[in-house]
Amino acid sequence: MLRKLVAETIGTFWLVLGGCGSAVLAANFGGDGNPLGIGLVGVSLAFGLTVVTGAYALGHISGGHFNPAVSAGLWAGGRFPTTLLLPYILAQTIGAILAAAVLWHIAHGRADFVVDASTAGAFATNGFDAMSPGGFSMNAAFLSELVLTAMFVIVIMGATHPSAPAGMAPLAIGLALTLIHLVSIPVTNTSVNPARSTGVAIFVGGAALSQLWFFWVVPIVGGLLGGVVGRWLGNPRTN
Amino acid sequence: MLRKLVAETIGTFWLVLGGCGSAVLAANFGGDGNPLGIGLVGVSLAFGLTVVTGAYALGHISGGHFNPAVSAGLWAGGRFPTTLLLPYILAQTIGAILAAAVLWHIAHGRADFVVDASTAGAFATNGFDAMSPGGFSMNAAFLSELVLTAMFVIVIMGATHPSAPAGMAPLAIGLALTLIHLVSIPVTNTSVNPARSTGVAIFVGGAALSQLWFFWVVPIVGGLLGGVVGRWLGNPRTN
Amino acid sequence: MLRKLVAETIGTFWLVLGGCGSAVLAANFGGDGNPLGIGLVGVSLAFGLTVVTGAYALGHISGGHFNPAVSAGLWAGGRFPTTLLLPYILAQTIGAILAAAVLWHIAHGRADFVVDASTAGAFATNGFDAMSPGGFSMNAAFLSELVLTAMFVIVIMGATHPSAPAGMAPLAIGLALTLIHLVSIPVTNTSVNPARSTGVAIFVGGAALSQLWFFWVVPIVGGLLGGVVGRWLGNPRTN
Amino acid sequence: MLRKLVAETIGTFWLVLGGCGSAVLAANFGGDGNPLGIGLVGVSLAFGLTVVTGAYALGHISGGHFNPAVSAGLWAGGRFPTTLLLPYILAQTIGAILAAAVLWHIAHGRADFVVDASTAGAFATNGFDAMSPGGFSMNAAFLSELVLTAMFVIVIMGATHPSAPAGMAPLAIGLALTLIHLVSIPVTNTSVNPARSTGVAIFVGGAALSQLWFFWVVPIVGGLLGGVVGRWLGNPRTN
Repeated sequence: MLRKLVAETIGTFWLVLGGCGSAVLAANFGGDGNPLGIGLVGVSLAFGLTVVTGAYALGHISGGHFNPAVSAGLWAGGRFPTTLLLPYILAQTIGAILAAAVLWHIAHGRADFVVDASTAGAFATNGFDAMSPGGFSMNAAFLSELVLTAMFVIVIMGATHPSAPAGMAPLAIGLALTLIHLVSIPVTNTSVNPARSTGVAIFVGGAALSQLWFFWVVPIVGGLLGGVVGRWLGNPRTN
Repeated sequence: MLRKLVAETIGTFWLVLGGCGSAVLAANFGGDGNPLGIGLVGVSLAFGLTVVTGAYALGHISGGHFNPAVSAGLWAGGRFPTTLLLPYILAQTIGAILAAAVLWHIAHGRADFVVDASTAGAFATNGFDAMSPGGFSMNAAFLSELVLTAMFVIVIMGATHPSAPAGMAPLAIGLALTLIHLVSIPVTNTSVNPARSTGVAIFVGGAALSQLWFFWVVPIVGGLLGGVVGRWLGNPRTN
Repeated sequence: MLRKLVAETIGTFWLVLGGCGSAVLAANFGGDGNPLGIGLVGVSLAFGLTVVTGAYALGHISGGHFNPAVSAGLWAGGRFPTTLLLPYILAQTIGAILAAAVLWHIAHGRADFVVDASTAGAFATNGFDAMSPGGFSMNAAFLSELVLTAMFVIVIMGATHPSAPAGMAPLAIGLALTLIHLVSIPVTNTSVNPARSTGVAIFVGGAALSQLWFFWVVPIVGGLLGGVVGRWLGNPRTN
Repeated sequence: MLRKLVAETIGTFWLVLGGCGSAVLAANFGGDGNPLGIGLVGVSLAFGLTVVTGAYALGHISGGHFNPAVSAGLWAGGRFPTTLLLPYILAQTIGAILAAAVLWHIAHGRADFVVDASTAGAFATNGFDAMSPGGFSMNAAFLSELVLTAMFVIVIMGATHPSAPAGMAPLAIGLALTLIHLVSIPVTNTSVNPARSTGVAIFVGGAALSQLWFFWVVPIVGGLLGGVVGRWLGNPRTN
């Protein structure tokens, strides 16, 4: 089991380092208004590619969840054993925190780097209301995170179904995460992943930390919902 | 059959939520002139990725049409039974309307969100003449939607042909939709999909609704044309 | 043979409609300085996706060349029969001209659309010296088109080699065309394809037409070079 | 062995011509502030696509390393013989220098092209402190290059493992390089590849050359680290 847990730690490390790293280091490169920066397209691509590459590299070891809401969803979908659920979530959270620590050190290698905990999206944290990058309400954030996490798990359940084309699931799943970011960075800075939210929130504190419960509860509920729907869809005995 | 129809509903829901959602929520993030927004490249990518991911996840259940013009085209191409045509189109349209409803609620979570039905492309609606994002005429819109839907169905027929590489069709088809958007968002805001046009038009009303007939007729005629050409191309008895 | 030729015509039609279409209609959307436009990244992606999608859809019929320099290169590499060379090149050129005609009509659906033949890159034409988008000399254009076409054919020869992963060649080849555009649009507006250059040059005339010989000679010489190198690399009897 | 070495030379030539070429010729197209330029997203995509396309085309000949740190990492991971290590590194470095020479000539085809060796990132060179595009310190550069090269080799080891989906490794590996660039261009202009750093540094001289040792030592140490971790992860006898 150690190998599985280390794979989940490394994969979630990669997700946070690559996804949040691109947001912190490169999204605004050259200052606001400079089109050299990678913007939300680049950040969306980066988050997706962490999963594409991590799942091709590590998926055959651990399944390549890298996300507590995915582990919970696959459990609800009958694809993941109960005994592994808490160890996986712990391993993922550790990986996310380690990545945030590395990113924190790299980012501070720039003399003028400052994290202002009162700014929405600071250090790639997730949030709603005043902490939403686009100023979206808690209700909008709830709907966005719930539906997108549910759809994420439905895509994962479907793309890894024995009837789906073999070997393409990591690509489909990673690109689904890119799509989710293309839609919802303005709403919540996009979580759909409690470990990712936790890793960066710990270093920022303030509202990012006080809203963190939301990014555990909503994605996990969404994931459970997606797991149940995905199980129904994938059951050949269903009419 | 229920499972197939639910898969089409969910897939079209995903297409409209992801494609139109990225346009409404993220294309202009930060205001006009802010390069952080995902722009037309991001929206094109989002539309394509809804199909890439939806088709890998659900294609083995329903075929993954998510589009009445595709169902009609595949029917004309001899790949889809007559009895399923109307149920599929209904299921797709329901999915599109549900997605537009969810998107409407998320978008209104931003206090300053307003939909002005007289603005071209408002809430990701399709249109021509004054309703074309780039001010293109009805003739140009006709040619664009007709040819692009026909080519879309030719790609679908070819990529799902038994002689084509197995397992790659969802990727090819989704990326064809990205390509179509890269070309034609300025012309009609890109439909090639009557369900997608209907979902958002219902919430906006005005010209988007009065022009809606166009985005049923032209893509379906284009799809039928593509189905016939694709059938001829794929017939090994053809010289 | 008719089916092969029609497939090459449709595929090259798609390449020019999608690639040049994205450049003409969407690259500058909103005017210079508006980040909504797809820019050179979007155009590069569009050109590549025409080949990705066209080759998955039509490659099993005609091989999916869509480019006289590719047909010539594969002939030099021993992968394409001499008897088909001229018919293929003719079919490709017809497809490119048809696409330019459709694009010409769509583009003129915008009241203020004007093509100024003295502007570098007008209507997506290729050129050097005063006709180079970035003001690059004929020598630079020669080196760029020669080396990039040679590398394009080396990638094609290698990715379609029996030892390469089956089914991935269309993706690799299309993405190679994206890469080539990411590098060289500023130099020549990127040809590496005489049919593509011809289609749009015919409608613009002027310098685009008087420089057209260059975009037949250089890509074809580059393609032949790539075919010879690719043949040597792919020969298992080579040490 | 000649065929393998030529494949490594051509592949590394492609990596530097495509990756550094896109940065030098197209990143800033139209001048700073012009959104037509491909920016850091385009350059990141270009670097990744050189590896995607090169590895599909040449991977079955040489393994498709195109990078001394990768060859070293695979050696440490037990996947590459000691006898080939130095010849591969030499072949890769020659390919990188040839590509920089071609790029140098193309770039000088523009009358106003000037390379200022005191500017960070000039001619796509790598650097830290004053030579870092975003002004990052040597410590940040060390952490970034070390961790990203290690993760790159972990992805390579995992994606080419017999248990991973066959035929997808070139895509996963190339997209990992895109991801790495999306994160770290601001930090060091992204090396993770000593040959790539050497090719362009030779033509620029100055600080790019005096800091070149760093981009040999750190990526190779990172690669060795990744090889060891990847070996442990891929060993089925590991618990």
